[in-house]
Amino acid sequence: MAFPLLPQALRRVLEDLEMLPGIGPKSAQRICFYLLEQSSEYLKKIGENISRLAEGVGRCVICGMLTDGEKCKICSDQSRNGSVLCVVESALDVIAIERIGEYKGVYHVLGGLLSPLDNVGPDDINIGALITRVGHEKYSEIILALNPSTEGETTAFYLRKILLKQKPEITVSRLAQGLPTGAAIEFADDLTISRAFSGRQRLK
Amino acid sequence: MAFPLLPQALRRVLEDLEMLPGIGPKSAQRICFYLLEQSSEYLKKIGENISRLAEGVGRCVICGMLTDGEKCKICSDQSRNGSVLCVVESALDVIAIERIGEYKGVYHVLGGLLSPLDNVGPDDINIGALITRVGHEKYSEIILALNPSTEGETTAFYLRKILLKQKPEITVSRLAQGLPTGAAIEFADDLTISRAFSGRQRLK
Repeated sequence: MAFPLLPQALRRVLEDLEMLPGIGPKSAQRICFYLLEQSSEYLKKIGENISRLAEGVGRCVICGMLTDGEKCKICSDQSRNGSVLCVVESALDVIAIERIGEYKGVYHVLGGLLSPLDNVGPDDINIGALITRVGHEKYSEIILALNPSTEGETTAFYLRKILLKQKPEITVSRLAQGLPTGAAIEFADDLTISRAFSGRQRLK
Repeated sequence: MAFPLLPQALRRVLEDLEMLPGIGPKSAQRICFYLLEQSSEYLKKIGENISRLAEGVGRCVICGMLTDGEKCKICSDQSRNGSVLCVVESALDVIAIERIGEYKGVYHVLGGLLSPLDNVGPDDINIGALITRVGHEKYSEIILALNPSTEGETTAFYLRKILLKQKPEITVSRLAQGLPTGAAIEFADDLTISRAFSGRQRLK
């Protein structure tokens, strides 16, 4: 690497950029040289926005969603159906589900999934607040919208058990699994085909 | 887009990231959520590095290479062969050539290429300083290490003309064109094959 040739200020930004997920040395170079062509006001603005990111972003005291106030926009919205709760792994899942615009209930963001192999237990994610919430509120249904991964399955299995023990009258559901739209059966993996079969729906 | 759901501080950084070359909305989200998990000290450090990028990076008064002082490291290096000058488009080309470690001469960074279609003329790139330099110094050879693109060819043609007019005794050369290492002739484009033929070298 001939980076010692470059000014230190440039090397520092290059190193910062290379640490980011999905950015390799070539992309970092490209971004760095793009930044160099920008005005110093623009660079200051970007720099300040990143510096202040942590200060300006908190977690909703109710659901754990990202927010700049005490309560997030969904928990503050009186028009949402407070009797249906959707449990998700991260704020990105909330954004993806809201994009569809069909779900009108509220959310609970776990901020992670149980993973015994990585030493992530129930105390490491936002499960305590979920149990308190389910104890105080009257939910007709709790939807576990967790990824169909090992960790997602583990977490869903654990939550189903403790939620039904706490409130046996609640409906606890999971998102449907099966073939994604546009998929070809011949290329689908075995587990997807198996779940598409076991979850098949009668046509009326 | 459900981004109105997100805190403003987060949206600002998302928008900044999406402006960078090679970063789309999904990468911007991924990077943003990675940054959110970092300490606020780390974010401050990254932010300050970007803010100060412009202040800490200047151009070498001799060759136009990026530097933090008045002269770049190569122009300050007494062990370089000052009689061979390599003309390149950008600082990235200097880094690429220095990576090989074979060239021991000095550089001149144009900071762009002539492009009549984009209204980039000789006054818009670092050509004036090159002419002054060639007038004052004694170069035995000037290597035009410009990309084999239309703009690169145009610039090389123009520079060859004015440099030989200025100092007819100088050797002006270009980098060899031909098949890149590992290429298959059957898949090479016509111009590459044509240049590989016209530039063929006798085996001794």
